Amino acid sequence: MKVDGVAMRTIWPAEEGRAVEIIDQAALPHALVIRRLDGVADAAKAIATMRVRGAPLIGAAAAYGMALAMEADASDEAIETAYAILIETRPTAVNLRWALDEMASVLRNTEVAWRGDAAWRRAGEIADEDVAICEAIGDHGLGLIEQARAAKANDGPVNLLTHCNAGWLATVDWGTALSPVYKAFNKGIDVHVWVDETRPRNQGAALTAWELGQHGVPHTVIVDSAGGHLMQRGAVDLCFVGTDRTTATGDVCNKIGTYLKALAANDCGVPFYVCLPGPSIDWTVTDGLTEIPIEERSEAEVLNVAGRTADGGMTQVFIAPEGTVVANPAFDVTPARLVSALVTERGVCAANADGLAALYPEKAAGHG
Amino acid sequence: MKVDGVAMRTIWPAEEGRAVEIIDQAALPHALVIRRLDGVADAAKAIATMRVRGAPLIGAAAAYGMALAMEADASDEAIETAYAILIETRPTAVNLRWALDEMASVLRNTEVAWRGDAAWRRAGEIADEDVAICEAIGDHGLGLIEQARAAKANDGPVNLLTHCNAGWLATVDWGTALSPVYKAFNKGIDVHVWVDETRPRNQGAALTAWELGQHGVPHTVIVDSAGGHLMQRGAVDLCFVGTDRTTATGDVCNKIGTYLKALAANDCGVPFYVCLPGPSIDWTVTDGLTEIPIEERSEAEVLNVAGRTADGGMTQVFIAPEGTVVANPAFDVTPARLVSALVTERGVCAANADGLAALYPEKAAGHG
Repeated sequence: MKVDGVAMRTIWPAEEGRAVEIIDQAALPHALVIRRLDGVADAAKAIATMRVRGAPLIGAAAAYGMALAMEADASDEAIETAYAILIETRPTAVNLRWALDEMASVLRNTEVAWRGDAAWRRAGEIADEDVAICEAIGDHGLGLIEQARAAKANDGPVNLLTHCNAGWLATVDWGTALSPVYKAFNKGIDVHVWVDETRPRNQGAALTAWELGQHGVPHTVIVDSAGGHLMQRGAVDLCFVGTDRTTATGDVCNKIGTYLKALAANDCGVPFYVCLPGPSIDWTVTDGLTEIPIEERSEAEVLNVAGRTADGGMTQVFIAPEGTVVANPAFDVTPARLVSALVTERGVCAANADGLAALYPEKAAGHG
Repeated sequence: MKVDGVAMRTIWPAEEGRAVEIIDQAALPHALVIRRLDGVADAAKAIATMRVRGAPLIGAAAAYGMALAMEADASDEAIETAYAILIETRPTAVNLRWALDEMASVLRNTEVAWRGDAAWRRAGEIADEDVAICEAIGDHGLGLIEQARAAKANDGPVNLLTHCNAGWLATVDWGTALSPVYKAFNKGIDVHVWVDETRPRNQGAALTAWELGQHGVPHTVIVDSAGGHLMQRGAVDLCFVGTDRTTATGDVCNKIGTYLKALAANDCGVPFYVCLPGPSIDWTVTDGLTEIPIEERSEAEVLNVAGRTADGGMTQVFIAPEGTVVANPAFDVTPARLVSALVTERGVCAANADGLAALYPEKAAGHG
């Protein structure tokens, strides 16, 4: 998508394949910093410190990290060392492990002399595959926005609501939940996005607002509590959110607070769509509420709010009494009954076992 | 309630009725500052700058402000001048106008020589009446906590969830939504409170956490998005919230985000109680969603987060891209169908016209 009028990705090879460059997301939204990664250690640090984040992007960054490692040393030992360094950065990220396994498998089956070229090629393919999946999600979701446009009585914009950042910054390009929005905007459909700020890390206010603004998509930031009120008043035509994990039955695990928005959408008759790449479906899980463990993150994320000071520096402020106890569940599970439909790279389906099985017969057959 | 082991109110007369002292809520939770008000100008400034806030407390502060005015000048003109100064501080506060009308009426009917004494006496009564109302809400709500205790299968604490600050800091003492909690705690019932941080102004993280902590009530701060997840997992036994305005039919206008918590409570089978003083019922309104205008507050509240810096100072940080557009609706309306019961100083009733009319027959008779 565009940044200051120029099309960009979140990660790309640089200097004819001797380095990688990324948008440093830790500096957003206050500064656009392009950071150069010269070796596997740089790549690992970028992932661990969340300069790149979002499951698909983490996978691509790890793949490029393996390519950087092969530039320096293409031995068998170097493959294992690079794998070990990169897998440690975000231990629970499924895409990270998948990308590293894929790269290691390709490299082990390649002669040492050709491993550098093979690594860059496969890393590039992994990035391109992610772009293709996200763009396909956008094409399918676009139809839902066009339906909403047709169903709208007035001439105002189609108003969407999204939570957290499931935009192109979380992927290599296009995003998941925001891909249909970019498709609609690029096609000239009048859209406007309500952006949940998404406490505690404020990815909505910081990242979603930034990427929509750079591409030119009209949007308004709201606190996480405001979405229900807006839906009650008819100010939201449809919701698009992403997901970290979807069960074989259509339950959706996503950023904390997604469930509350789904409840409000249900109560107000607003369609609630979840956008996901097929690989994020967990075919082994059928009951999201009882089977998916919810990550409890640090108290500091809630207690300290980061931002820009009046003099342009960055700092954190502490918002509660000293010694306050905090609970910080990072995700919640939205039951399939509250999800109007799932939007995948293969099409739109009902949020249930039959709907998913029809789109992914080869996966569904192996389970249940 | 207690602060550092000592019982306090939010406002009290000082120096034998020549001054008033308040807890400066703008300094909370990072410092306990007792601020002395020497005249009506000080009182007006304290209200306008939210050093005192919460509808009942604003009313009491305005009444004391009139007493301070009479100390300096008890003429008819002084009554009108003080009224004019104080009414300007928070133009939409219903309690403010009521308290000022009450004070002005008493003073106009008192001889000049006695107006000082009369003003202090009536202001003290207004404060005491608020305390009595809030304590009665607590006594009635206590029964609901005791029911929850009896219904609980395990020995753990009764877990309550609250939104914003409807505690004693919003009143003269006891609070509304938290009054039953203090009653239960004082009686030795094992209670624990989930405290919504309550963006954008963070009154939960700043004020509710502080007052519960000072009184010794166990509590945990969460982001506003977390309550639904906790209810899904059985971690909430009942919800208690306050309200700024309740319709004659039981619709509840309260801090933005209350509606989302009521939806989750409804979905998870958790009782959702709203605590309110009778005077906050608006008998002229029967449909909260269409008849109650929602205050839109400044973008700055959302974009700038205030807190304590590492070196102990206070500052604000800016959390979004420069130029971000924000919507900041301050309240939402929870339909009566989602409210399990209303808790008033006269008892507990169903959230509908019949329930309220049974408790307030003299009010209901005048309408509908």
